[in-house]
Amino acid sequence: MSDDRTVKTEGFTVVGEHNLRPDGVDKVTGRAKFGADMMAPGMLHAKILRSPHAHARIKRIDTSKAEALEGVKAVVTSADFPDNENVLADEELRNVRYNIMAREKVLYDGHSVAAVAATDVRIARRALKLIEVEYEVLPHVVDVELAMAADAPILHDHIRTDGLEGAEDKPTNIAGHFEFGHGDVEDGFAKADYVVERDFTTGAAHQGYIEPHACLANISGDGSGEIWCCTQGHFMVRDVCAQLTGMDVSKLRVTASEIGGGFGGKTTVFIEPVALMLSRKAGRPVKLVMTRDEVFKATGPTASAAIRVKMGCTADGRITAAEAELKYQGGAYPGSPVQMGAMTAFACYKLDNVKASGWDVVTNRPKQAAYRAPGAPMAAFAVEGVVDDLANRCGMDPVDFRLKNAAKGGDRSAYGPVFKDIGLIETLEAVKAHDNYAVPLGPNQGRGVSSGFWFNFGGQTAVSLNVNIDGTVALSVGTPDIGGSRASMCAMAAEELEIPYANVQTVIADTATLGYNDVTDGSRATFASGLATIEAARNAKNVLCRRAAAAWGIPEDAVTWKQGAAHPAGPNAGEFEPMSIRELAQNAAATGGPIAGHAECSADGAGPSFATHVVDAEVDPGTGRITVLRYLIAQDAGKAVSPSYVEGQMQGGAAQGIGWAINEEYIYNDKGLLENAGFLDYRVPVASDLPKIDTVIVEVPNPGHPYGVRGVGETSIVPPLGAIANAVAAAVGVRPQELPMSPPRLLALLNSRPTEPGALAAE
Amino acid sequence: MSDDRTVKTEGFTVVGEHNLRPDGVDKVTGRAKFGADMMAPGMLHAKILRSPHAHARIKRIDTSKAEALEGVKAVVTSADFPDNENVLADEELRNVRYNIMAREKVLYDGHSVAAVAATDVRIARRALKLIEVEYEVLPHVVDVELAMAADAPILHDHIRTDGLEGAEDKPTNIAGHFEFGHGDVEDGFAKADYVVERDFTTGAAHQGYIEPHACLANISGDGSGEIWCCTQGHFMVRDVCAQLTGMDVSKLRVTASEIGGGFGGKTTVFIEPVALMLSRKAGRPVKLVMTRDEVFKATGPTASAAIRVKMGCTADGRITAAEAELKYQGGAYPGSPVQMGAMTAFACYKLDNVKASGWDVVTNRPKQAAYRAPGAPMAAFAVEGVVDDLANRCGMDPVDFRLKNAAKGGDRSAYGPVFKDIGLIETLEAVKAHDNYAVPLGPNQGRGVSSGFWFNFGGQTAVSLNVNIDGTVALSVGTPDIGGSRASMCAMAAEELEIPYANVQTVIADTATLGYNDVTDGSRATFASGLATIEAARNAKNVLCRRAAAAWGIPEDAVTWKQGAAHPAGPNAGEFEPMSIRELAQNAAATGGPIAGHAECSADGAGPSFATHVVDAEVDPGTGRITVLRYLIAQDAGKAVSPSYVEGQMQGGAAQGIGWAINEEYIYNDKGLLENAGFLDYRVPVASDLPKIDTVIVEVPNPGHPYGVRGVGETSIVPPLGAIANAVAAAVGVRPQELPMSPPRLLALLNSRPTEPGALAAE
Repeated sequence: MSDDRTVKTEGFTVVGEHNLRPDGVDKVTGRAKFGADMMAPGMLHAKILRSPHAHARIKRIDTSKAEALEGVKAVVTSADFPDNENVLADEELRNVRYNIMAREKVLYDGHSVAAVAATDVRIARRALKLIEVEYEVLPHVVDVELAMAADAPILHDHIRTDGLEGAEDKPTNIAGHFEFGHGDVEDGFAKADYVVERDFTTGAAHQGYIEPHACLANISGDGSGEIWCCTQGHFMVRDVCAQLTGMDVSKLRVTASEIGGGFGGKTTVFIEPVALMLSRKAGRPVKLVMTRDEVFKATGPTASAAIRVKMGCTADGRITAAEAELKYQGGAYPGSPVQMGAMTAFACYKLDNVKASGWDVVTNRPKQAAYRAPGAPMAAFAVEGVVDDLANRCGMDPVDFRLKNAAKGGDRSAYGPVFKDIGLIETLEAVKAHDNYAVPLGPNQGRGVSSGFWFNFGGQTAVSLNVNIDGTVALSVGTPDIGGSRASMCAMAAEELEIPYANVQTVIADTATLGYNDVTDGSRATFASGLATIEAARNAKNVLCRRAAAAWGIPEDAVTWKQGAAHPAGPNAGEFEPMSIRELAQNAAATGGPIAGHAECSADGAGPSFATHVVDAEVDPGTGRITVLRYLIAQDAGKAVSPSYVEGQMQGGAAQGIGWAINEEYIYNDKGLLENAGFLDYRVPVASDLPKIDTVIVEVPNPGHPYGVRGVGETSIVPPLGAIANAVAAAVGVRPQELPMSPPRLLALLNSRPTEPGALAAE
Repeated sequence: MSDDRTVKTEGFTVVGEHNLRPDGVDKVTGRAKFGADMMAPGMLHAKILRSPHAHARIKRIDTSKAEALEGVKAVVTSADFPDNENVLADEELRNVRYNIMAREKVLYDGHSVAAVAATDVRIARRALKLIEVEYEVLPHVVDVELAMAADAPILHDHIRTDGLEGAEDKPTNIAGHFEFGHGDVEDGFAKADYVVERDFTTGAAHQGYIEPHACLANISGDGSGEIWCCTQGHFMVRDVCAQLTGMDVSKLRVTASEIGGGFGGKTTVFIEPVALMLSRKAGRPVKLVMTRDEVFKATGPTASAAIRVKMGCTADGRITAAEAELKYQGGAYPGSPVQMGAMTAFACYKLDNVKASGWDVVTNRPKQAAYRAPGAPMAAFAVEGVVDDLANRCGMDPVDFRLKNAAKGGDRSAYGPVFKDIGLIETLEAVKAHDNYAVPLGPNQGRGVSSGFWFNFGGQTAVSLNVNIDGTVALSVGTPDIGGSRASMCAMAAEELEIPYANVQTVIADTATLGYNDVTDGSRATFASGLATIEAARNAKNVLCRRAAAAWGIPEDAVTWKQGAAHPAGPNAGEFEPMSIRELAQNAAATGGPIAGHAECSADGAGPSFATHVVDAEVDPGTGRITVLRYLIAQDAGKAVSPSYVEGQMQGGAAQGIGWAINEEYIYNDKGLLENAGFLDYRVPVASDLPKIDTVIVEVPNPGHPYGVRGVGETSIVPPLGAIANAVAAAVGVRPQELPMSPPRLLALLNSRPTEPGALAAE
């Protein structure tokens, strides 16, 4: 058997090939089962009543008329959810609890107030209108900087300033403060030849997944229950729902459906506990499906942000100091990704003097949720804009400037730990060598460069691998497949067992049949479930070799596995015919029973991933409309298990970044009500908005994975905001500091331009 | 840690208690999901066209009119099923293949000929009428002895007599011949003071499960598929369906629904491959549900039988020789349980000279399927009748006679192997000591005694046990729960982990998420899945102790598990606070990941189970109606994990035996058509037919199971036929030799009585 601790870097036969995606045909033929596709006998349909106010006290809820409507089988309000000790003791859980069903106050337009389950969805809708809610409307705040002001309307009386340095103890909207860095930034700025300091803002963007949240929940008369739902983490759904409804974890079984996009937005719960509670009350299965309007108003977009960045460098382009202050709004409850924003802000650079501080702020908006590399894209937008300025000041090519300052293996990261092998420099070299980087530009066109970093997560992971009687393999993983991870798992198991890719089938096991798995987030699935899959396959190989050894009457370590078969090795080599996995499986009953391999682990060693994006953009000076002409991505995948899906991840991140940079934002009116809760008014990019997105997969093996794999899903959304803004700045000679760069906002920027061209570099 | 190889016989805290059945509430409230309760978007409904003849050649099938009917999406016939090499090479598989869809010939009334899937079940039914089938009707045979005759109509040309001793090579209905025994029976009979020889017949009985076969099948455009169905073995369904439809095993995922009874009748497939093939052809999910009429005509009842038994004994009651010849009809295809009949026939007795031979015969009846202790009840009926005669001849109490000849541990069994610890003697002593055995009888009343034996199976078994974050436990087993086995698995896992019963939840995992498990048959589930559960729990305890040892910084073997917690032991005892399973689970992420235990095994050591039944019955001399007055069972459970379910198994077997003995039989007309395909005409016992059934659970630990458990599900149906017949014989003075003892048949028997009372003993 091979040594488990070495990283395999060559001789792959399945991994790295273009393997057919197992979920592909069902998805294109419409037969894949998503969240809303499950039915149950006697099923009810549920609807949620939502707040029409941004901030209000709930004085009274009267559900009696709704309950009396024929066909209504259950109505729930906050009073139905137990405020048990477990829930109250855990702040995060408590916030989920009050977010999924408002208690005492509503905190945003669309906050859930009550829910109805009825025999028909029209009856449920009619019943919502019969629920009487008396509100006392309160002042609201939806802007992060206004929310931090001393006289801001306060959302939560229990959030106090006493944790903040030098502040007296009073209610505040500032829920947290984080600082990272090392060295002495004042000293660093003193050594700089050039210093640039700018303020930036970004809008709140929604993940824009195609599939609205949907679930089917069923609680039996004995108190045990089941949920079918679209989620990035059904174990998370199970554990959270069990706690919110006061069940033993073992009594709740959750199955993840296919998922029509998540991008982080399905790493928490919104409707599942409500459906579960309605089912408990009605004694029937309950289906609950969100509308698009509800998705926008009451799920979690990412935080909007206000960021100040100050950086200095020597005339020859060496960064001497970097400082950032980030203010992210978490929406109605604490928990913005500002900590990760502050950690990632300067991670691309080797810095002696760096400081990043972040403020987590609550506002009257929906509680934000993770969105692909949460917190990082806004920070990179700000930092990479200032880096661009510094390169201009130095008169350096932006790639060269970054190469001069790029972090590499062995460097201490801006947020603390020392990097192992990383591939930032390789991505910079790759874009520099690419044809796109040499294409001449026309008038009103500019080229922008940005690098980006993402940690990548590991986390708790369990996998089971079972060998079938015909030698094919059934693999159970617990990380919902949001980007083709089943294909990658099949490939890694096949690679390890040396059998054809088509002989492995991977399913996402439900929570009752596999050990706990953390959510599919942090780009962890292919890394962590892959690592566990390889371990499980190695364990299965050990069983297979042991069975062959017993059959041959030779020691176990005198058997080796190759080409999908056990071979006698060493002194016994050639003495017996090899036994294939199929033969060994067919004899399993007589040789000790079913053949399996399992792995449970806390997957450490998720190597960070870096990317560099190059964007060519043209700005229409008359309308302010930005056209992205060319898009180039070089990203370090460690090892691309499924190269076409890696490319898809890279392109998908870029596409979402283009939307965020140019068009997407939550627009609130003066009452704090969301004005664009639909895909007509909240404009995500469509195919005709996008250029060809060229990709270069860089492979610097991750030493923490047996095949060198790194997560690839999130890094790709980190550089686009900065790269596009830098391209626009190059095209129009003035730096955009507000996202999205929608036509009206860009027109205003164009009108603010100094008359002298080239002003940007000298600013 | 405890030594795995000792049998625990005392100190149980959960096992042996009356634990609440986890499936109970859902079943009594109607929320449990059975075979017909699953739905899928776009689902079609299927119906099967069946033969109206007992035996006919199919000359032509024209499905064109059915295919043209609006709403019909697919029609399949035998031509759609690939006759691939795998199928043809395996006789059993080939028989299943031709049984589920007839090819060239129909072999019984109700044999499947074609199937239709349509948007609506009424359209499907209408379409069946549009299918034109031209038959050439052939002579038929439905009686086992007629089928063995030289001039019998032949079902299969390829079954030849050349395997039979002294026969020339020609087609035959005799598909197999089996012999067991040792010693010299002629010598034994020569030593006997009394010899009794009799011929017996039994009718074909159906298992009479409440739930008809039902499934939902779905094949995707990429060739992978899913089945939801009620079955005793979803891994078997997967493997058989994959082979019959030419799929890789890994591409088919089967989920077992709740099951409304099986009793062996759901250990094979009838409709699942048909639904799968319709789905493949239609490109839509297909639901297929049998009617009761179809269940009777086209699933597998047990074999009817003709049995000759000859036994001799000395005047003081020692059996000197025993011989039996058994003829069982397998229905349309080979595979009657006659081999098991011959093996079990004399298993209760210690015999020096014994011979049992069995004939497997095909007839124009549905292919028989397993029915609770397949083959044994008919054999026991015959043998126990002759034993009763011998006891009468000797003037001995029937229990004393059996005690004198009973097999015990160390004896060579009549079918070969030497018994380990067994409990037959203990069951005989238990009934003898029971109050029922002393109740005085009135006129026309009689008391009958019978013992019975069943092997019990082990087989391939896989179990996974996962510890949840709150310290509760999720247990995955792969043996469908047909008698409360989930409760027993919860109890054994809880016992081993020393946590409350309620903290364990057991599910039947689908085929994609767990290793292969043999069918729930042979009373194996509680034995084999229990054995694997205990092994998995012990593996999980090892992980838990290792985590605690690491936390305390002490060696792993210095940690002991008790009361649901890890305790420092030996020199470290008392040095640290114990760590509960909950604490260890909550820290799992930081200590190595999810905590689990797995077990895959070929479960050997399923100890056989013996029972003795005592029946008091009254016969109405005017009508021939039998009333069962009192019923007493003593049975060896090894260790009763869930005593109330053990009692339920004992009582259920007795109830089914009462039906088989008194009323149930397949009635064919002269055309070979089944005349009583419904519960009105095929009369199973209802509550008012049954007496109180008293039970005594005997516990002689099975040395092959860590808690001493033996299977209990089947043995209980072995003695009733003989016990009731012996009670009737005692009541009326003449021995019934034909089952069922329905009123007309019993009246005829009464009329055949010699005038002199007490004739039976002297016969």
